[in-house]
Amino acid sequence: MIEGFVLNATSTYSQSDVQTGTPLPGNYAGSLRPQVHFSPPQGFMNDPNGMFLDAKGTYHLYYQSNVAGNQHWGHATSQDLYNWTNQPIAIFPGGPDEGIFSGSAVVDSNNTSGLFPEQDNGVVAIYTVNTPERQTQDIAYSYDNGFSFIKYENNPVIPSNSTQFRDPKVIWYAPTSSWIMVVAYPVDFEIGIFSSPNLIDWTPESNVSHIGLTGLQYECPNMVEMRVDGDENGETHWVLLISINPGAPLGGSITEYFIGDFNGTHFEPLDATARLTDFAKDNYAGQFFYGIGADEDQVSINWASNWQYTNVVPTAGEELGEGFRSAMSVARGHYLKELPRQGLALISYPRDIFSVVESELAFNDSLGNGSVFVDYSDVQSGALYFEANITALTDLASLDGTLNFTFSSSVSGESVSGGTYISSGDVWLDRGHTDGFSNPFFTDKFSQTGLYREKLGEWRISGIIDRSIIEIFLNEGELGASSVFFPNSPLDTMMLRVGGINESASASVGVWALKAVWLENADANGTVVGNVTEGAGNTMASLLL
Amino acid sequence: MIEGFVLNATSTYSQSDVQTGTPLPGNYAGSLRPQVHFSPPQGFMNDPNGMFLDAKGTYHLYYQSNVAGNQHWGHATSQDLYNWTNQPIAIFPGGPDEGIFSGSAVVDSNNTSGLFPEQDNGVVAIYTVNTPERQTQDIAYSYDNGFSFIKYENNPVIPSNSTQFRDPKVIWYAPTSSWIMVVAYPVDFEIGIFSSPNLIDWTPESNVSHIGLTGLQYECPNMVEMRVDGDENGETHWVLLISINPGAPLGGSITEYFIGDFNGTHFEPLDATARLTDFAKDNYAGQFFYGIGADEDQVSINWASNWQYTNVVPTAGEELGEGFRSAMSVARGHYLKELPRQGLALISYPRDIFSVVESELAFNDSLGNGSVFVDYSDVQSGALYFEANITALTDLASLDGTLNFTFSSSVSGESVSGGTYISSGDVWLDRGHTDGFSNPFFTDKFSQTGLYREKLGEWRISGIIDRSIIEIFLNEGELGASSVFFPNSPLDTMMLRVGGINESASASVGVWALKAVWLENADANGTVVGNVTEGAGNTMASLLL
Repeated sequence: MIEGFVLNATSTYSQSDVQTGTPLPGNYAGSLRPQVHFSPPQGFMNDPNGMFLDAKGTYHLYYQSNVAGNQHWGHATSQDLYNWTNQPIAIFPGGPDEGIFSGSAVVDSNNTSGLFPEQDNGVVAIYTVNTPERQTQDIAYSYDNGFSFIKYENNPVIPSNSTQFRDPKVIWYAPTSSWIMVVAYPVDFEIGIFSSPNLIDWTPESNVSHIGLTGLQYECPNMVEMRVDGDENGETHWVLLISINPGAPLGGSITEYFIGDFNGTHFEPLDATARLTDFAKDNYAGQFFYGIGADEDQVSINWASNWQYTNVVPTAGEELGEGFRSAMSVARGHYLKELPRQGLALISYPRDIFSVVESELAFNDSLGNGSVFVDYSDVQSGALYFEANITALTDLASLDGTLNFTFSSSVSGESVSGGTYISSGDVWLDRGHTDGFSNPFFTDKFSQTGLYREKLGEWRISGIIDRSIIEIFLNEGELGASSVFFPNSPLDTMMLRVGGINESASASVGVWALKAVWLENADANGTVVGNVTEGAGNTMASLLL
Repeated sequence: MIEGFVLNATSTYSQSDVQTGTPLPGNYAGSLRPQVHFSPPQGFMNDPNGMFLDAKGTYHLYYQSNVAGNQHWGHATSQDLYNWTNQPIAIFPGGPDEGIFSGSAVVDSNNTSGLFPEQDNGVVAIYTVNTPERQTQDIAYSYDNGFSFIKYENNPVIPSNSTQFRDPKVIWYAPTSSWIMVVAYPVDFEIGIFSSPNLIDWTPESNVSHIGLTGLQYECPNMVEMRVDGDENGETHWVLLISINPGAPLGGSITEYFIGDFNGTHFEPLDATARLTDFAKDNYAGQFFYGIGADEDQVSINWASNWQYTNVVPTAGEELGEGFRSAMSVARGHYLKELPRQGLALISYPRDIFSVVESELAFNDSLGNGSVFVDYSDVQSGALYFEANITALTDLASLDGTLNFTFSSSVSGESVSGGTYISSGDVWLDRGHTDGFSNPFFTDKFSQTGLYREKLGEWRISGIIDRSIIEIFLNEGELGASSVFFPNSPLDTMMLRVGGINESASASVGVWALKAVWLENADANGTVVGNVTEGAGNTMASLLL
């Protein structure tokens, strides 16, 4: 949550409306509404919050929302990370000067807090309460699996007189049977690490300070344990992620990370290397789901926008009838992998994307140097997934050629394009040829260099394009770029071209239509009503188990 | 010096031509030839090398050049850092498989090397010799003040069996009466620190390893002592600069730096904060002049290009008759300054730019909200310097408004623009509306955030535009961006607009025509012949003092 943001999103709902417990309806039919990405029913959304996986296999996503005025936690649930059900607002501010800022949630299955004498699925949200005077860390607890929350009566659990102390992310650290919080002191460029036996009494243990790029604020830290790909001894390392805004290298907002170890009190980076999670500029404030162990791939969802322009992008315009601003990335799977030269790196790939594939539009496993053309104007979602593999790269001399893709509008000629130079290892993305939005900070072109000289065998680029957002990945997540874009006319034509690859090399390409997940859950007008029965709204007392 | 670059620049000169000692002529009349920036007479130029200030006040700039085939050191001299005299090539490779890669130069005034028994102005160049098998650190010495060099007979002074060990930068460290070298182990992400009593025998002292952004290579380190602005006790700190390529955040090449202290053997950063020297992407491999003390502002010159596209920019096209690729930044003055929130930062400002001002084109010290329009089609250089100040920003509420500038072509409508949002502190630059070059990696827009909430009083943007390069600066060097651009028609019209500033605030704007420094030294065809008399060419023996 940044200081000083501006809400421009239109809303016809008042504070009293949303406090009735009725989820906000949203129109998901607009041409800029993503169909496999989460976007809020109405209004402005920023950081993902409180993400946890419950014992029944439901993923809970909360998010910073100000549709009803000051910041509160919106809520949605999903079984598969693509089909989301909008839920009633989960946590409201206590007054007009108060905002429920970013934070996290855990399942207190052992009742360490003492708040859940009769259940093993109590949920505790840990978040920042923002007032003009200070930011404190507060908790609220839920008897009904995270649909409604009761604020703890002795809040704050971590008091403060500072206006710069926020975004607690809590995990369970089994070796010491402790809850561990990472929390940002943004303008001091410090991440505080606290421990607690009960989620209520917190002890400051250590700080990570002034590391990597600082921008002008540290925000939204996450610390998460991850497996190392291919390690037969079950080795894990810890990843500390810090979002920086403003002041990212490309302007505005981005996330950097450090790989190290955690001993229960201190995070010790393996070295001071700073790495970025994304090479474009719409990937900020990502959060990892609580409840996934390091033996599995960790899962995050990230805010796909940038504070430099998020308040002026055109999706809130009434003329478009969309009335929302910002989408989340698709859920990403993560693990660590030793990359040649670069060492350990965070792999970030779209999780289970094939679960939302509707149909195959093109597949060619012997393309060679050639093109694939796809007219997808009939695909209801307007969303595609594609993969292109250059294989049989047997030696350095075979590392040649290019693989380029263009998504364009047959009506306006607007386009989003990208590609990779196999010889140099550079990957690029260009959103500059869309006409629905321009802004000095809406950078057109992004690029980054993958490893190539040591990367023989295969070179793969894949991507998801979804109306107003594209995410591309190199080599199944060694590099990634997340970028929003705003065409006046829907993009409906794809061209993918492989050129100049060595004759001993092979190329295969697949393009798949994705389901219109949101519209499948909408009425004939494209309106998604959300869940009015499962959740508790704000009538918590009646739902005590 | 990157591995695997490609020379596309045209040249009609052979190795034997340049070895005659005749400096290469260059045509400096082309519409893309900078007039206040250094660019080579012909062919491809990359890293600045061997920079030193001699006792007579002459600045020596060497540079990576391959006009004659494999890499050698081009050379130019200047009294004022703007009027450069092209000199004969200074150091040649010893054979067709050898390249004289990047390095530095010092004046061995105390004859520590024993190479200069009869003079106090002996110059020693320390550089990397690159062969297919290895990179070693070699030295060459000059009796004639750096115009010609004799290779030391017992080279290398630091042997190696690695192909990844390069770019030595040497300084004199008085407290231990030692020469200190920083040198890159690029793919190990390490900077080695060596010491020597005599420039010949080198002892490894320590390494700085895996810090900040690594990209895929560390290159061209510099370690330099600098004063801290406003410190009355004469406090200094040391700045370690590391160029990274490929793999910079914006793609390709950039330079990061760390602030710390040096004790004669170890560089200890104050913290692990990584900062970038530039928020655009044409500032790489900068080098600091040897011979300037920490009581003065340090001076650097930086390569104003990016390996992602430097080999394909249009200035080498025969149709343009320019036949060169790459320019250097103007000389930058540097010191450290404590900035609000951010802490110590490297200030980087154009040095003595008013020394090349030809005339005042516009000046308005009470602009308020308004515009300044300048037709500069009559300015021979096509180069301008401008400053715009918003003053009397008395409180947070007065931090509002924008200051934007556009340089455009009255013929083609092409433009380069930029500006600053005083309320958010963001500064931006957009080179995307020029038509002479496009490329997936030729990023259009750049931006960064200055400090604002604490920055009351004044908000200043200034810039130098010079045919095919623009450098802008916020608040006299707190932020900077260096960007090349390639219009088909020369830019000849400037519009600067101040809008929305608080009525209590003031705006002042000045625009100055810069001299056509290169053309002033050219013949009627725009050809600069260079110095054929002062330098020694390659006939070193005759010039022994």
